[in-house]
Amino acid sequence: MITRRAWLGMAAGAALAQNAKPVRIGMVGVGNRGTSLLRNLLDLPGVEIPAICDINEANLQRGQGIVEKAGHKRPEGYWNGLEDFRRLAARDDLDAVLTATPWEWHAPVAIAAMRAGKYAATEVPAAITLEECWDLVNTSEKTGMPCMILENVCYYRNVLMILNMIRQGVFGEIVHCEGGYQHHIRKIRPDGEVSWRGMHSVKRNANLYPTHPIGPIAWWTNINRGDRFTHLTSMSSKSLGINRQAAERAGPGHPNAKRRYALGDVNTTLIRTENGVTVTLTHDTQSPRPYDLGFKLQGTLGIYSGTLEKIFIHDAASGPEQWRDMGPYYEKYEHPVWKRLGQTATKYGHFGGDYLELLEFVAAVRNRTQTPIDVYDSAVWSAITPLTEQSVAGGSAPVDFPDFTRGKWKTAKPVEVTGG
Amino acid sequence: MITRRAWLGMAAGAALAQNAKPVRIGMVGVGNRGTSLLRNLLDLPGVEIPAICDINEANLQRGQGIVEKAGHKRPEGYWNGLEDFRRLAARDDLDAVLTATPWEWHAPVAIAAMRAGKYAATEVPAAITLEECWDLVNTSEKTGMPCMILENVCYYRNVLMILNMIRQGVFGEIVHCEGGYQHHIRKIRPDGEVSWRGMHSVKRNANLYPTHPIGPIAWWTNINRGDRFTHLTSMSSKSLGINRQAAERAGPGHPNAKRRYALGDVNTTLIRTENGVTVTLTHDTQSPRPYDLGFKLQGTLGIYSGTLEKIFIHDAASGPEQWRDMGPYYEKYEHPVWKRLGQTATKYGHFGGDYLELLEFVAAVRNRTQTPIDVYDSAVWSAITPLTEQSVAGGSAPVDFPDFTRGKWKTAKPVEVTGG
Repeated sequence: MITRRAWLGMAAGAALAQNAKPVRIGMVGVGNRGTSLLRNLLDLPGVEIPAICDINEANLQRGQGIVEKAGHKRPEGYWNGLEDFRRLAARDDLDAVLTATPWEWHAPVAIAAMRAGKYAATEVPAAITLEECWDLVNTSEKTGMPCMILENVCYYRNVLMILNMIRQGVFGEIVHCEGGYQHHIRKIRPDGEVSWRGMHSVKRNANLYPTHPIGPIAWWTNINRGDRFTHLTSMSSKSLGINRQAAERAGPGHPNAKRRYALGDVNTTLIRTENGVTVTLTHDTQSPRPYDLGFKLQGTLGIYSGTLEKIFIHDAASGPEQWRDMGPYYEKYEHPVWKRLGQTATKYGHFGGDYLELLEFVAAVRNRTQTPIDVYDSAVWSAITPLTEQSVAGGSAPVDFPDFTRGKWKTAKPVEVTGG
Repeated sequence: MITRRAWLGMAAGAALAQNAKPVRIGMVGVGNRGTSLLRNLLDLPGVEIPAICDINEANLQRGQGIVEKAGHKRPEGYWNGLEDFRRLAARDDLDAVLTATPWEWHAPVAIAAMRAGKYAATEVPAAITLEECWDLVNTSEKTGMPCMILENVCYYRNVLMILNMIRQGVFGEIVHCEGGYQHHIRKIRPDGEVSWRGMHSVKRNANLYPTHPIGPIAWWTNINRGDRFTHLTSMSSKSLGINRQAAERAGPGHPNAKRRYALGDVNTTLIRTENGVTVTLTHDTQSPRPYDLGFKLQGTLGIYSGTLEKIFIHDAASGPEQWRDMGPYYEKYEHPVWKRLGQTATKYGHFGGDYLELLEFVAAVRNRTQTPIDVYDSAVWSAITPLTEQSVAGGSAPVDFPDFTRGKWKTAKPVEVTGG
């Protein structure tokens, strides 16, 4: 028997690991994102992909080829219409189903997976309506199957170091956090048509993509695990960005340059927690600007700015309050998982976040344990979209969060990131 | 007759200028801040200070001495109780009254000044209740006397360059702005007692100091001059910072370390304008952190970040969206007033803001014209404190802004900064 550490050391690049109990995952959706996750999964020891579903036949065949090329049996393909994932989920040779479809299929696929007794993993967001959030929770509770939203930003090096510093009390008591999805997305295709992602902007005025910033903030503040979001209020600016983009790509006379889009260019949301922490959340996918998750963490003893990638820690005796470089903090507070696995993780997408989230998901499936991000996290983080939509439509009126945990947040333990 | 340009060139450092029509200003409040403004005023051509009011005799005498030392007649002193500023305002040899008292006296002094036919200048904020805001507006309209809040940040070099870039269309149409007063204030004196400024934190949970960030944002977005703030919603975190400070300064057993303070450490406010611009405003004076006004301006064609002091301007054909240094933009878009007066201005406080705001105020008094920041600006910017207090108390319910201009915002012209 090899040691855990040696085993983990072997993980990277090993298409097959003799000592790893197989974990059999069905993939639903192998477009750009799904294909990237598939490649990553095949590098983890013991992962097998017996089935892939994609209504785009070219995508499906590419996925099947990738699995074969990695030395596995060619996965069975499902492409017989939008609901063919249900046949995939019903197979008796799968432990888990992972979905990387367009947003509106995440919850249906995850729910079908849990109903069929499989672990569910879903790309972000896990759901796009409150009803779907509740369906995820109720299905998970009824079936006993976990559902994990694959929020890779939770596993970023800076995010986990800050988590480690918080746990060690360096920031004192946390009073406020900020984060944002600020990413200029091409919503108009080169042919002038609106992309599938852009279509969400046509009808919804809300924070459409909250989980990248809120996942880490929820971990930092123990949401669902000692604290909970109680209410939010949300405000959107006017909508101009997609029209500009369409005019640039298809000419000012193109119908898509002249139609009205619901989504305000900048949506800002204030969230409060039971314990009195406030969170400012930004969503801007329509304005030209550099990408920035805009993290900020303010505690009674210090502050972290992700925009600056700087820290300041209070010293009652000290002089000027000036930003300090992260280097010395990484030396002292690097998260244990990043110390151990960072070198391998960074070979994969999203600064290593993809690798670590999949490692932890696969480990939970293998060990039949709860996933590190559970169905309550998946539901609460995703619920921000319908809740902000409601607040914006109501002139920024405050809207209460449902308590998806039904009181369990009071006793649940803070997340532990172990690397699987 | 010398030219306007030559005259302005002579301004710097000239204690007396032969060609400048005298402007006679009564000072109310010559503590640290008032004294600094007094010294600055005495350097402007033609300014005379016939009277000073301060209930602190040492401050008063210091102020009188400073005026004498600058070659003027010793000003008459007023120190006979809290309302002695009324006798000062009633003098017939004053053109204007400037107040730099604690906040709660700003509106009463400004109102007394206008009633006595004087121009009013007030340190920030101009008022601390909605009633005071309306009193300022009504008094100014009734008497015809202007009231200018001395918001020096409006005159910062970066703020005015951004204004210039906006006017030239570089940012496209503005959709969102951010700003904050993020300044770790010592609210507990060395003896363990709460300072006068800290006393405002005992009872009020609100954005107590909104004008430094909102002044520039209002200029950038033509508030009261083509657009107006319609409503806001505000949220405060729990309050821990003053207790920590009191424990550090006076020991954890001191009553001030154990009492409850109303003011949440971080207050965040969302404001919307009639034209669909959103503003995020932060107030944090209790957390250890580096000072930052946190400016951000997002337009359809570009973004400015004050925290980074960087810019990105969209180019439809361009590659990666990355932050760019300010240098080349200053070369191209430096505000004319800064080109002409920057070298002189920066010798004075607040990065030159003090100099330029006083130069413009004095010029308006001299020429009997409207002040660049008028009573409506003074009222709207200051009203954010009582409005946020109301929203926070109502669980972040949206609160409407009064239209202090009574519709005049629709036709009023954008501010013009000329340097006096």
